Amino acid sequence: MKALAELAKRRGFFFQTGSAYGGVSGFYTYGPHGATLKATVESAWRERWATREGHDEIDAPTIMPEAVFEASGHLDGFDDLLVECPACEQSHRADHLVEGQTDIAEAESYTAKEIEGLLAEHGITCPSCGAPLAEEPVEQFNLMFETAIGPGSTNRGYLRPETAQGIFVDFPRLREYARGELPFGVAQIGRAYRNEISPRNAIVRTREFNQAELELFFDPDEDEPDLESVADVEAPLFSAEAQTADGEPSFQTIGAAVESGPIADDWVGYYVGVATAWYDRIGIDLDRVRFRQHQAAERAHYARDCWDAEADVSGPGQDPEWIELAGIANRGTYDLSHHEAHTDERYRVFSEYDEPRTVERASVEPDMAALGPEYGSQAADIAAALEDLAETDQRAFEGETVAVEVDGETVEIPTEQTGFAVEEVTERGEQITPHVIEPSMGIDRTVYTILVHAYDEDEIDGEERTVLRLPPEMAPTLVGVFPLMDKDGLGEQARNLAADLRAVGLSVTYDDSGAIGRRYRRQDEIGTPYCITVDYESLDDGTVTVRDRDTTDQVRVGIDELAATLAALQDGELAFDQL
Amino acid sequence: MKALAELAKRRGFFFQTGSAYGGVSGFYTYGPHGATLKATVESAWRERWATREGHDEIDAPTIMPEAVFEASGHLDGFDDLLVECPACEQSHRADHLVEGQTDIAEAESYTAKEIEGLLAEHGITCPSCGAPLAEEPVEQFNLMFETAIGPGSTNRGYLRPETAQGIFVDFPRLREYARGELPFGVAQIGRAYRNEISPRNAIVRTREFNQAELELFFDPDEDEPDLESVADVEAPLFSAEAQTADGEPSFQTIGAAVESGPIADDWVGYYVGVATAWYDRIGIDLDRVRFRQHQAAERAHYARDCWDAEADVSGPGQDPEWIELAGIANRGTYDLSHHEAHTDERYRVFSEYDEPRTVERASVEPDMAALGPEYGSQAADIAAALEDLAETDQRAFEGETVAVEVDGETVEIPTEQTGFAVEEVTERGEQITPHVIEPSMGIDRTVYTILVHAYDEDEIDGEERTVLRLPPEMAPTLVGVFPLMDKDGLGEQARNLAADLRAVGLSVTYDDSGAIGRRYRRQDEIGTPYCITVDYESLDDGTVTVRDRDTTDQVRVGIDELAATLAALQDGELAFDQL
Repeated sequence: MKALAELAKRRGFFFQTGSAYGGVSGFYTYGPHGATLKATVESAWRERWATREGHDEIDAPTIMPEAVFEASGHLDGFDDLLVECPACEQSHRADHLVEGQTDIAEAESYTAKEIEGLLAEHGITCPSCGAPLAEEPVEQFNLMFETAIGPGSTNRGYLRPETAQGIFVDFPRLREYARGELPFGVAQIGRAYRNEISPRNAIVRTREFNQAELELFFDPDEDEPDLESVADVEAPLFSAEAQTADGEPSFQTIGAAVESGPIADDWVGYYVGVATAWYDRIGIDLDRVRFRQHQAAERAHYARDCWDAEADVSGPGQDPEWIELAGIANRGTYDLSHHEAHTDERYRVFSEYDEPRTVERASVEPDMAALGPEYGSQAADIAAALEDLAETDQRAFEGETVAVEVDGETVEIPTEQTGFAVEEVTERGEQITPHVIEPSMGIDRTVYTILVHAYDEDEIDGEERTVLRLPPEMAPTLVGVFPLMDKDGLGEQARNLAADLRAVGLSVTYDDSGAIGRRYRRQDEIGTPYCITVDYESLDDGTVTVRDRDTTDQVRVGIDELAATLAALQDGELAFDQL
Repeated sequence: MKALAELAKRRGFFFQTGSAYGGVSGFYTYGPHGATLKATVESAWRERWATREGHDEIDAPTIMPEAVFEASGHLDGFDDLLVECPACEQSHRADHLVEGQTDIAEAESYTAKEIEGLLAEHGITCPSCGAPLAEEPVEQFNLMFETAIGPGSTNRGYLRPETAQGIFVDFPRLREYARGELPFGVAQIGRAYRNEISPRNAIVRTREFNQAELELFFDPDEDEPDLESVADVEAPLFSAEAQTADGEPSFQTIGAAVESGPIADDWVGYYVGVATAWYDRIGIDLDRVRFRQHQAAERAHYARDCWDAEADVSGPGQDPEWIELAGIANRGTYDLSHHEAHTDERYRVFSEYDEPRTVERASVEPDMAALGPEYGSQAADIAAALEDLAETDQRAFEGETVAVEVDGETVEIPTEQTGFAVEEVTERGEQITPHVIEPSMGIDRTVYTILVHAYDEDEIDGEERTVLRLPPEMAPTLVGVFPLMDKDGLGEQARNLAADLRAVGLSVTYDDSGAIGRRYRRQDEIGTPYCITVDYESLDDGTVTVRDRDTTDQVRVGIDELAATLAALQDGELAFDQL
């Protein structure tokens, strides 16, 4: 939305970094209002997704060594499809070109070869210069930023493409902090990096961005979410089936959608409910949101089921433009079992049975005094092979001899030399690999969507104005304080009032420059919900006017009630028309 | 401090990242308590250094293009001295080896050649394997992490080595948000990266860390800090002179130190005062802090004057171990003038004179109809040279002809063809390059120092305990709530109480496992200042015991007064012994 991008730059929400140096696409700086709004979104996330759920938050590094991303699958699988224009040498995401120039949606799920075919078949051209791309190779381009750690370049590191791995990698330690008990969640807010081929749309697709992720570790046989608390939330669901049938999203209660509808997983359903209510609270318009279920082909390499929250960020009168706000995925045991396979560490928790169980356990105690002399250096390997065999196949020990394979040869060992025995043991529980549900949110896109959905233009007294209709909780400034004029003590009283309101923790701007109407417009443009004017009446009776951004209505309020009134308006305990 | 590092790992303050993968030195993860403490330090910084000072905060990317660091001087000058051991191939900071194995301090200021000489002269050996390093070359190693932006590797980027450049680069835009008026400050908290040769000492010298920086832009001829507000603050100052004379730091008031003492710069003095009071508030022991003035040779390439805050983080009974917590530097116009020189943008502000000034301005309007035919393609260069000359030397136009140099040749132009004129113009002000004062703080080191200074071991009823004596404002958990036992309704009442205290925004841990003494110890170890026990008396009379961490004294408080009492204890409005 062009008008929003201009407003964002002019009024200090966000702008492309380093324009004096020509800028580099995909890098944005948050100015004062934007940094405040972003911090508010992050606190609101922390309050809802970590504190209120009782989850811990951690803060891991953004650079991690290569081995971690080998295990996580990012080194091999975290690619986009790249095509370079032979004429202007511009790089493009090949799947985006296909989507833009054909009716094909979700081209991301095609292979490089398939996309090459589509480029030729549909006569796709370079969006920068118009040259045909039919004969051009499509390549996998890894999206991780690479760097070298320490002197020399042998120790490769990568900037994390998601905050999640910082949690998974240190699961064994985090498990201790949680006293080893499932379910537990670990939250993290921080930077992530993707070396996008073609960044676009302001802070929507950048190369450096902020994520808020929750990893909930649970035992699928034991742990259930508090579905009741979100059962009545009506969420705009766009099921895989509806997508295939060219249908539309529809509002359904989480209760019904989990019970008999399209949501297959209880935990995913729970978080779709939490997300819906949270988006509503922070000022995202639910009529411009949909939760879209992933088609099987489109799911990330680890995801067992996934719903994306998407928002329409088109301007007034334009075609819908859906962007991904969040993914809520059941990652199963993918991450923990891969880190276990790549290290010597156990990524499991001990799960206690309801009742201790008695099980038969087979063991061997090979007679090394017999095996040693006979098999020499192979004896130890034979003992290990016998141990493995006892665990997997007790029946192999039923005969006179036992056959094991060592170094590609089959060796027959007299059963009596194996020390084979079966005993009954009581087990209190077992080591299980927890499953993971991950609600993962893009903070920058959330900020962008809040701004687009708040953006409005209307007419006040015949004059056009731009207004950001942000919820009071989210507005970078809660209240503007103006003297009617900076004379006759009005300025002084207004400055004192501003200082008093700041002292109780409210976010206040003081402004005495220009006509009062212009000062209102300045605050409207940055979404300040209330403006207070100190006028001559104030000096007489100790009241001021409070003006509502959205209706431009004004009421007089006593100065001594102001702090409490504004705090109640901010918290939503009071509505302006109740004043 | 080894005991602290162990506590930090065991109780979730911080630990080396990815130990399952062998870890990579210089990368640490903050666990739940550490992440909370770090966030609290950041909020306390924001409150004191940005909000209360009226400064805006921004949030810039961590990756910036090469051109920025060419201009800032980091590409050429941001090096450490590297020596590699020929035997074990371990890399070391050569200046640190010299400092460690000789009496030489601040070896950082020596050149590579000088350090090579010192290695030989003092017989310095490899600290890992003991091999002599006398013949080894010492090299400059650039500390920035390098990466490639976008497909292909032609577009080089670097991870920022300090947050500051994100502010300087976009000064022209930030100036607009400040309506072009000096002084104004821009604050930023965020990640920074240094590819340290040998990271060490837990979170003290890491490769990825967090900074809080304030850049204050001011006009040295006009703007003065509010020195009065810090005049009485007593700061432990270690002047350059005292260092040279082998003296000691001494406590001096900021007022006296700026008036007649070692602090040369008013703004630097102001921030030393602010920093001293702020360190005291967040739990750093001022008796283990010194502000050390930089010697001329030691100053960073841009700094005109600089004082470092240093803290002693040695354990009990050990030699002092000073680490740098912050730098407060007068960077002059270095950064802004370099970015101006490297771009087409003006990094200045318009400074209005008290009175408009009338000045003579010389101009030329060369007669191109005469110069063109005579000098052909050189005519434009001649006109430009005349323009420059008029600005710098009016007297050159006093004769019949004017001599200018073009392409290495001197050309004589008849003065009448130059259109030389002098007119009087009225100027309202001029474009000046603001000076910059930068208080720059390391957040991780601040966290570390708070923990070291809070760490204590004492004996309670004959039993040793470890206790973190954190100020209530800084403690990750304010209060532990325990039922005496989880039966007879005690557990339920304690859980309800914990929920009520959480609902008013206090940070609460509920614990019912193990003996009450063990529960106290667990909270002592993470610095929780108060513990509440619900016992049988609570069921009768609605009171609970509140226990003070430091004295272990206990008092009974009514449940209905608890929230207000705890909030007052946290804010420092009430002391425990007043209960």
